[in-house]
Amino acid sequence: MRFYGNIPLMVEHNKITIKKALKLDSGEKISGFDIAYESWGKINADKSNVIVIMHALTGDQYVAGKHPITNKKGWWDDIVGKGRILDTDKYYVICANVIGGCMGSFGPTSINPKTKKPYALTFPIITISDMVNAHALLLDELGIDKISCMIGGSMGGMQVLEFVAKFPNRVERAIAIATTSRHSAQNIAFHEIGRQAIMADPDWCGGDYIAKKKKPRKGLSVARMTAHVTYMSEESLQDKFGRALQGKNKVSYGFDADFQVESYLRHQGISFVDRFDANSYLYITRAMDYFDMEEAYGKHLAEIFKTTTTKFLLVSFTSDWCYPTEETKYIVRALTAAGSDTSFVEIKTSKGHDAFLLDEKEFKATLKGFIGK
Amino acid sequence: MRFYGNIPLMVEHNKITIKKALKLDSGEKISGFDIAYESWGKINADKSNVIVIMHALTGDQYVAGKHPITNKKGWWDDIVGKGRILDTDKYYVICANVIGGCMGSFGPTSINPKTKKPYALTFPIITISDMVNAHALLLDELGIDKISCMIGGSMGGMQVLEFVAKFPNRVERAIAIATTSRHSAQNIAFHEIGRQAIMADPDWCGGDYIAKKKKPRKGLSVARMTAHVTYMSEESLQDKFGRALQGKNKVSYGFDADFQVESYLRHQGISFVDRFDANSYLYITRAMDYFDMEEAYGKHLAEIFKTTTTKFLLVSFTSDWCYPTEETKYIVRALTAAGSDTSFVEIKTSKGHDAFLLDEKEFKATLKGFIGK
Repeated sequence: MRFYGNIPLMVEHNKITIKKALKLDSGEKISGFDIAYESWGKINADKSNVIVIMHALTGDQYVAGKHPITNKKGWWDDIVGKGRILDTDKYYVICANVIGGCMGSFGPTSINPKTKKPYALTFPIITISDMVNAHALLLDELGIDKISCMIGGSMGGMQVLEFVAKFPNRVERAIAIATTSRHSAQNIAFHEIGRQAIMADPDWCGGDYIAKKKKPRKGLSVARMTAHVTYMSEESLQDKFGRALQGKNKVSYGFDADFQVESYLRHQGISFVDRFDANSYLYITRAMDYFDMEEAYGKHLAEIFKTTTTKFLLVSFTSDWCYPTEETKYIVRALTAAGSDTSFVEIKTSKGHDAFLLDEKEFKATLKGFIGK
Repeated sequence: MRFYGNIPLMVEHNKITIKKALKLDSGEKISGFDIAYESWGKINADKSNVIVIMHALTGDQYVAGKHPITNKKGWWDDIVGKGRILDTDKYYVICANVIGGCMGSFGPTSINPKTKKPYALTFPIITISDMVNAHALLLDELGIDKISCMIGGSMGGMQVLEFVAKFPNRVERAIAIATTSRHSAQNIAFHEIGRQAIMADPDWCGGDYIAKKKKPRKGLSVARMTAHVTYMSEESLQDKFGRALQGKNKVSYGFDADFQVESYLRHQGISFVDRFDANSYLYITRAMDYFDMEEAYGKHLAEIFKTTTTKFLLVSFTSDWCYPTEETKYIVRALTAAGSDTSFVEIKTSKGHDAFLLDEKEFKATLKGFIGK
């Protein structure tokens, strides 16, 4: 039985072992590695009805239906299903856990066959480009060449951009939501705070917490709290909580969670720890920090997308300060300059970066219009 | 000898013991407590040349000259001095360490005479109003009734507003910079992250780290890193660091500080630990979170300032997302409605909240014009 932290990994994920070798950006080679994925709907005879969803930093392949660990609905359950925007009566929808993740794909919790112990920090550093290459190998394995639509928000959007850049003729329609082509200094800063919080926790044990039957609960919780604030907007925090007190009429003159916003954040932190691995958090945030397409390709974004035949939809949210609209506009200008068929919609919302996971009518109407055609 | 963490407190601060009792907002009473302060210039015969500076969260009374712990220049050394904006040839300038602080004023590192140990978490919760009452007692003790000018940025600005609200005829001119009359949900959220980071550190020892000769270095460092990002703007982080690497040509594919912004933040965190006390950080952030003048006074801000004769200058910075201009405008509207003589200047800058501590020409010209008259 595998563990992470003290939790036995009871969940058996659907997975495929990729036999082909993959050379990572770091120079390391991996082969015989697992990719876990979920799918909905039926693939048609000519395999022309495939929708690929790329998940965000703390997302996973359990997009629709019940999540096997949290027992809550999947993160896009209202988007994926019969008669929904990604209609599983019509499309074969697939989502894979990124490499570096902790939901069954090759990641730092995977067992190193040589040592019989989890890789932990001996796991190689991965990049968004590596994630995309691994996804492409999964699709190859499944015999899927053309993708009718590839869609992702946040880090999922980065993967969408990177996939199209690598395979300019494989994706018919691409939707990149609330994302960027280059991770900003501010975002690196917040990720670094999260990593330092994890590594400051003595239960992190230099990364070896699984072998030592510990779990850096407090550190990972602080990391999540920090990230969570960046996913909301000042306005949404104000609207949702303001200075409202949590189950009391006056402040306690102490360090308990007096304010609802404190209580909410603590809950976000604590519940995250039960479903996510701390080392995966380190590796995936690092991959995001390293993401800078122009730096990686050594040319302007417009040059990178010069040969693509993909039709694009870019979506941003007015109150998203994690990936501000300006960064989406930069991508839109480059795609347009590259002669790409590109739609761009900025959704007016107070919900911040998280809007792509929330019930945002105009956003859904935008997706529906683009995909429905 | 007193310690904080493992550091012996070699610095003897100038202080006065306040004998009068002070009833805190929490209901607790304190008396015979110290307030440490520094002053520059000479008080004139009729004591009409007094300028009082209120310091921010992590500031202290060492405004000008050399800081006794860091050996660096005081935080407003370029503002206070001979011929400077707060001209010590003309004014008697005084700044006291807030109660709850760690630079000699009554705070959680103070020794409880009953137990002979530091108060640590037995120190009473304090509020901005308590800080201001303590300051007023210090001024009484020094025989200072009227204040020619009171000035402060960030939490210092909160104290300025609170002081004028309490003593509507004691301050001739008040300058409140980059501040608010009510701490926002987002700011509470970031403070809560900092507190959780400190309390997650096992070396915090439930607050008793001094007695146990420990210091929650990692937790306090993460708290400082988090706060520091909020004091800068996305633009200033971009301008200052962007995605520049730290002393290398390519990323290391590891968790070292590859990017300058990571290295800078780590340095900010580590150096802060040497000059600040973790429990003080908990108490002072709590005081700020509790700050909501309308809630405390039970009336609209305009009503609170109805009887004041103080002439006001409010300053905000365009890129300050910690205390956005909108919050200053709210104060300006209230003061104006209260019939107060109020000037308001919004400084265009990319430097974020920290702009009040940096060399910002227009800001300095604004102060000079207002104080110089």
